[in-house]
Amino acid sequence: MIDPKHIEAFAQIVGKENVYSDKAHLIAYSYDATRTRYEPDAVLFPRNEDDVSRILRYCDTNHIIITPRGAGSGFTGGALPANGGIILGMEKHMNQILEIDLQNMVAVVQPGVINMDLQKAVEAVGLFYPPDPASQEYSSLGGNVSENAGGMRAAKYGITKDYVMALRAVRPNGEIIRAGKRTIKDVAGYNTAGILIASEGTLAVITEITLKLLPKPKFTKAYMGIFPSVEHAMNAVFKSLAAGANPVAMEFLDSLVVHALKVKLGVDLPEDAGALLIGDVDGNVTEEVAFQLEILERAFKANGATDFHIAHDSDERNKLWFARRNASPSITIYGSKKLNEDISVPRSKLPEALNRIYAIGAKYGFKVPCFGHAGDGNIHVNVMVDGSNPKELEDGHKAIEEIFRLVVEMGGTLSGEHGIGTSKAPFMHIAFTEAEIGLFRDIKRAFDPNNILNPGKMGLPA
Amino acid sequence: MIDPKHIEAFAQIVGKENVYSDKAHLIAYSYDATRTRYEPDAVLFPRNEDDVSRILRYCDTNHIIITPRGAGSGFTGGALPANGGIILGMEKHMNQILEIDLQNMVAVVQPGVINMDLQKAVEAVGLFYPPDPASQEYSSLGGNVSENAGGMRAAKYGITKDYVMALRAVRPNGEIIRAGKRTIKDVAGYNTAGILIASEGTLAVITEITLKLLPKPKFTKAYMGIFPSVEHAMNAVFKSLAAGANPVAMEFLDSLVVHALKVKLGVDLPEDAGALLIGDVDGNVTEEVAFQLEILERAFKANGATDFHIAHDSDERNKLWFARRNASPSITIYGSKKLNEDISVPRSKLPEALNRIYAIGAKYGFKVPCFGHAGDGNIHVNVMVDGSNPKELEDGHKAIEEIFRLVVEMGGTLSGEHGIGTSKAPFMHIAFTEAEIGLFRDIKRAFDPNNILNPGKMGLPA
Repeated sequence: MIDPKHIEAFAQIVGKENVYSDKAHLIAYSYDATRTRYEPDAVLFPRNEDDVSRILRYCDTNHIIITPRGAGSGFTGGALPANGGIILGMEKHMNQILEIDLQNMVAVVQPGVINMDLQKAVEAVGLFYPPDPASQEYSSLGGNVSENAGGMRAAKYGITKDYVMALRAVRPNGEIIRAGKRTIKDVAGYNTAGILIASEGTLAVITEITLKLLPKPKFTKAYMGIFPSVEHAMNAVFKSLAAGANPVAMEFLDSLVVHALKVKLGVDLPEDAGALLIGDVDGNVTEEVAFQLEILERAFKANGATDFHIAHDSDERNKLWFARRNASPSITIYGSKKLNEDISVPRSKLPEALNRIYAIGAKYGFKVPCFGHAGDGNIHVNVMVDGSNPKELEDGHKAIEEIFRLVVEMGGTLSGEHGIGTSKAPFMHIAFTEAEIGLFRDIKRAFDPNNILNPGKMGLPA
Repeated sequence: MIDPKHIEAFAQIVGKENVYSDKAHLIAYSYDATRTRYEPDAVLFPRNEDDVSRILRYCDTNHIIITPRGAGSGFTGGALPANGGIILGMEKHMNQILEIDLQNMVAVVQPGVINMDLQKAVEAVGLFYPPDPASQEYSSLGGNVSENAGGMRAAKYGITKDYVMALRAVRPNGEIIRAGKRTIKDVAGYNTAGILIASEGTLAVITEITLKLLPKPKFTKAYMGIFPSVEHAMNAVFKSLAAGANPVAMEFLDSLVVHALKVKLGVDLPEDAGALLIGDVDGNVTEEVAFQLEILERAFKANGATDFHIAHDSDERNKLWFARRNASPSITIYGSKKLNEDISVPRSKLPEALNRIYAIGAKYGFKVPCFGHAGDGNIHVNVMVDGSNPKELEDGHKAIEEIFRLVVEMGGTLSGEHGIGTSKAPFMHIAFTEAEIGLFRDIKRAFDPNNILNPGKMGLPA
């Protein structure tokens, strides 16, 4: 329980109507997409950057823990108040698109803006914001920056960090920091925006984001390749890219996912497909689209594709993408609880990585349906267990740890796009040396000497 | 003078043949492209990462200052031993391309590799490393990363930081840090690679760089637009980009540069040109190249271009680029000393920025020929003075400070690609608040508590 005098002080700063410590609010702000729960002591809705600064300064002085929160849709607990304290909620007031600058092709947004709202706003004026995490309909751009969100289009267009031109942020001591500029080149001073991206709200509270926009490509076509095995499909991925293909997306579904889509949703897919690759190519001229599709078709067929299908209209394209979009909901046929991890390995290691992951699953008797962003090496690995069976849960977590060790051994990372938060924190020692974790601690201390900002995340001290 | 016992200790670590403290070496390693001189106390050539680690640990313990150095071609003194100590020279041993990984399209290099050597090596296998600073023939990739080098192709392809996938680096205490992975997505732990880029050797010594490569586009064509005034050309820049053009390069020459090229080098250009835009477009199909040229031609002509010229063969292309490449050497006709700065502003501010820069020059009676990377907003501004006239030099520096203030007021940066080093350090307070500079100091202290790595750069404590 927080001292009522602090609640009073917060009300002085942001107004009574923006401070909540009733049970309903504490519960509402206790969870995210991990389904783990940690109750905060209070929930504050700052109205502007000045509120953020004053709240932080107060909390720093009084050693009150703060967890910044966008939409609370994270998969690893980044926005959970794992050590209590207050939630700084950005969705209520700090949710405005401040500017779409057509001349310099940038958007300036507050952290609470929903990803899709920005995408729609810029597409309405002929521009394009590529990062499209699966959560794009409900995740916030502040969260996207804090976790360095990826998405389907990363194969061609990169991830959130590739679009962040500038940030405004508040340090725990209340100081306002501008990092970066509305210019493509800026090499004056340390790249503080670079370290704030993916820092999971542990270093500073982001209050404004300037994002790079692109011209919207004029033509897009979807494709699907059907392969006899995961190995064939994965070879086709890196061989087509090495041959010069530059697809917007190159998404992978394994045979378990294909089966689940047929059984659960009646999706019309070949029963004997060992793996599918589904994606888009784009271009400003139809010849570029054709050029891309030709490279893909050639490389897919040279690597055993039994079919290469091009969607010729938007209905056909929606049908292909329906399969990909429903991969995650369909696989619940394999177990009531899904232990899902978003590992990433160098693309050439995908065939071996997946085969070894299936072998780990088989050892414990689990189905491990896999799907995801093969074009950039980032695969969602789902160990399906019976959530009501403690032994299965325990084994499932053992399998996950084995998978992490394997991925790290193959030059991969614990997380391609979900982050570390609370849920992967126990595995940090697998991926990083003592020296590397020591550096993370030193960086954290430099930004936040009193450790009030989201402590205990990413394996950092609680 | 350094204590001879330290020289002995260094010889124990790297071998006698890699330690130099004779006057010839101290002079040879006392300068860079700024033409300012600071003599080191010794020059060491580490053979490998382990040498770097042991040297750093020794220096940290004994409080000996270290300045890492690649090719010493920097424009702002980043590699100068401004406070004495030792130079850690990467060009002698740590200069190997370790791997070109065709399957994952990455190159792994040591910091001493010359930019152009990597470009040639990857182009020989059909790949492409876009960052092309003007120094590409002689600058090292370690230096490119440490300064976050830009180049002509930044308009379409971005800058060095957009290609750094992973780094290995050594902290002053000798600890080896891996930052990033050979994967497109990696969000585990802080983005330490992000903060090492552009840190000018002040945080850690980079020992290995993993760079992203692209497929080499199949077709390239050069274009030139001739405009009656700088204002017309600059409007054409941001209006063509906003119309969807995505040129590889869009380089600007003003009328002073055009005049100098004609007078000094006899380049065949129209005498009455108020400004030129020269650049390349590329694509995998000729239709994409034609699409880009069409947008440019339309936007250029709508903004007053008197001519739009396409180079139809490589001879014509070389002729266009000859003018751009010789901009810098030709302008010496305006003064024996060039005070050159590489400011960057949001592209839409270019017309106003340049007019106000010329006005500052006129106030002091200086010619200020300008050229550079208009496509990304980064312009090289050259205040030409008589280097033998102390009053002119003093006025020139006043003009430079006025230009910096103007640029910052317009949302721009002190440096688009050259960095801060020693030469722009006095201007940091113009661009950054006390709080921001305080954060830089805190970051520096976190990485390098004893302040042995390249102290005094970027406005940080000496």
